[in-house]
Amino acid sequence: MSAAGGDRPVVTFLSDYGLRDEYVGVCHGVIAQICPRARVIDITHGIPPQDVRAGALALAAAVAFMPNAVHLAIVDPGVGATGVAARRPVALQAVAAGHMLVGPDNGLLLAAAERLGGVARAVDIAHSPRRARSVSHTFHGRDLFAPVAAALAAGGPLEQLGEPIAAESLRALELSQASVYQGELRARVLYSDRFGNLALDASVEQLAELGALTDGPMVAVHRGVAIPVARARAYADVAPGELLLYEDAQGMVALAVNCGSAEQLLGARRDDELVVRAA
Amino acid sequence: MSAAGGDRPVVTFLSDYGLRDEYVGVCHGVIAQICPRARVIDITHGIPPQDVRAGALALAAAVAFMPNAVHLAIVDPGVGATGVAARRPVALQAVAAGHMLVGPDNGLLLAAAERLGGVARAVDIAHSPRRARSVSHTFHGRDLFAPVAAALAAGGPLEQLGEPIAAESLRALELSQASVYQGELRARVLYSDRFGNLALDASVEQLAELGALTDGPMVAVHRGVAIPVARARAYADVAPGELLLYEDAQGMVALAVNCGSAEQLLGARRDDELVVRAA
Amino acid sequence: MSAAGGDRPVVTFLSDYGLRDEYVGVCHGVIAQICPRARVIDITHGIPPQDVRAGALALAAAVAFMPNAVHLAIVDPGVGATGVAARRPVALQAVAAGHMLVGPDNGLLLAAAERLGGVARAVDIAHSPRRARSVSHTFHGRDLFAPVAAALAAGGPLEQLGEPIAAESLRALELSQASVYQGELRARVLYSDRFGNLALDASVEQLAELGALTDGPMVAVHRGVAIPVARARAYADVAPGELLLYEDAQGMVALAVNCGSAEQLLGARRDDELVVRAA
Repeated sequence: MSAAGGDRPVVTFLSDYGLRDEYVGVCHGVIAQICPRARVIDITHGIPPQDVRAGALALAAAVAFMPNAVHLAIVDPGVGATGVAARRPVALQAVAAGHMLVGPDNGLLLAAAERLGGVARAVDIAHSPRRARSVSHTFHGRDLFAPVAAALAAGGPLEQLGEPIAAESLRALELSQASVYQGELRARVLYSDRFGNLALDASVEQLAELGALTDGPMVAVHRGVAIPVARARAYADVAPGELLLYEDAQGMVALAVNCGSAEQLLGARRDDELVVRAA
Repeated sequence: MSAAGGDRPVVTFLSDYGLRDEYVGVCHGVIAQICPRARVIDITHGIPPQDVRAGALALAAAVAFMPNAVHLAIVDPGVGATGVAARRPVALQAVAAGHMLVGPDNGLLLAAAERLGGVARAVDIAHSPRRARSVSHTFHGRDLFAPVAAALAAGGPLEQLGEPIAAESLRALELSQASVYQGELRARVLYSDRFGNLALDASVEQLAELGALTDGPMVAVHRGVAIPVARARAYADVAPGELLLYEDAQGMVALAVNCGSAEQLLGARRDDELVVRAA
Repeated sequence: MSAAGGDRPVVTFLSDYGLRDEYVGVCHGVIAQICPRARVIDITHGIPPQDVRAGALALAAAVAFMPNAVHLAIVDPGVGATGVAARRPVALQAVAAGHMLVGPDNGLLLAAAERLGGVARAVDIAHSPRRARSVSHTFHGRDLFAPVAAALAAGGPLEQLGEPIAAESLRALELSQASVYQGELRARVLYSDRFGNLALDASVEQLAELGALTDGPMVAVHRGVAIPVARARAYADVAPGELLLYEDAQGMVALAVNCGSAEQLLGARRDDELVVRAA
């Protein structure tokens, strides 16, 4: 059975390859050769180099909005490693019918698979009969992952593309978790986006809890500097240049500046700790 | 009637979303779910964040070269605003048959619509029956604009996608205008491109007027620094590293450096004033 | 005969246009108008501005992985030049059936053509009947190259798209060449990629020769600073943060840092000279 949505199978593609080099284009070429009918939707290739966590969160945010597809995802600092350091290359069938995932088993895929109902079946594709005849040590996207994703899109059965492995053995993403204590939200920055919005490791429930505790003015504190921040729903709920704390469209708790950049205003980066508390 | 060009409908897509995050890919997924036959042509997603003017000029420069299409454009600093600050989300049918535009009514769309013969009909899509069931406050691209654009591409009649509004009520782009006085061109930078070429707010007629006034050597002056500049048609008409004043391929008056960057040479940015005069 | 792979013709597209402006999207629109059935695979548009060499090497690395296609490539510092400085715009048929190349004759195309078996036939398309009615002096991608590439994809015979020229008259890419002498590899940086990997002008044979000469620890020296480097096959063969010398997936000899950037570690850029020798 094909992973097709409509009459043409869809492959989505996310990576940290960037668009400066020919790497993404080469993978498109490989897919087009193996499955000429496939349509490729690029989710993004702007994941910061080797940032598996950012890739996993972007993929998880995207898959629910995709048609039935083979989701090819590659953020793979361990490419070519052997022995105990080796990560497995895998292909997964999601419980949600028509969705598959292909990529390294390093935490990149599971959050997305959970959005698709979990993992129904999994195979290790390291020795897949559909990999390139000669597999390089540094570009498994071209030689392994894209060929297997294209073979799946062309209708190749999962069980013929690799060796079965237990879904329980797949590697989950480990995330820090914010805390709310004595009216303070203590959170870390998971990633920033192109607008300088900062996604935090707090839950929507923690945001509500904080709201219940503080109904007066609040501040966000980073490295000892406190900046006023307002609970809001949309950017324009605060004046231009002002900071807001909100639930973003991906369901993450985030900080933003209306018509500006929270990243710049706070000088905060990935993994930095921030405190939000009463002013 | 469908907005199709050939047998597959086309959606063009321009935004300031950038390609670092999954936002563009998610909109592609939404379109593919609603109208699997649609083909999406990305015009650009590199518009500087919230720079409605740059988006409007890029869209206007592009539409004439596109097949019949639904032109989806999103540069939307006012997303989620309510009350008097709210901008309307709109869908427009152009006078040129087969062209529609979807986006915020903030000046982004009208210059392009004029290239397509003007606006024939317009609807406010804020409460469109084709919007997502739950519309976020910060990602109308995904929840409102892309769904409506895809519904149009699938052949949905404009009048069923929103409430009719008067074309005259749509918001035009306001641009500064250069002046030619006593042999001097006084102009502002509208935008710079990736090559460091600077598009000015001067007209081709003003360029001709300037040419008639000065037939000797000229200089471009920015912040008191005067740099020799030559009237030319192509980059290679001047020596490498030298500055030229020319009509660019979009019909804008622009400054460039052969094999270099006018932006760097002049140190000029968006909105800066420049004077071109006899040396 | 069409350049089609499968039932839809393929146009691949590489340029230095970047994705900040609408230039790439406009070329897509032009192709879609002339050959609506064509599918476009973007190889990359992130070639550094006017870096013909980087474009030529990326194109050569990519074409072997593409389906039968018209390969449209534009890195064109000489656009619009006339007289003796003028470069010819050309279309080439490769010896490998079903592959064509379109672009400026400035060294960009020939390395790729060689990967496709060489040039079977060539035409000068400066006065092609399929160019735009009005050809700008600065945007031949839109007005000349994309229209001709699309006409080829639509099945237009090469000989009707331009004037025949001798394949021997086409301009080859000139590359520096590393040397191995007294156990030292002396090489230049051809380009860096997004991961900060540095491709050198050394051959795989020279890498083997160096390996035969030095079996002890080695260093890479740039501007007098020596940094330990190991011969390896995969990034993970060395510890995180350490430098490796390897054959990359494109068959180039390269330097990389496991989980890091060789470009940053060595402070080396395009054309810089590096020496690798025994420590």
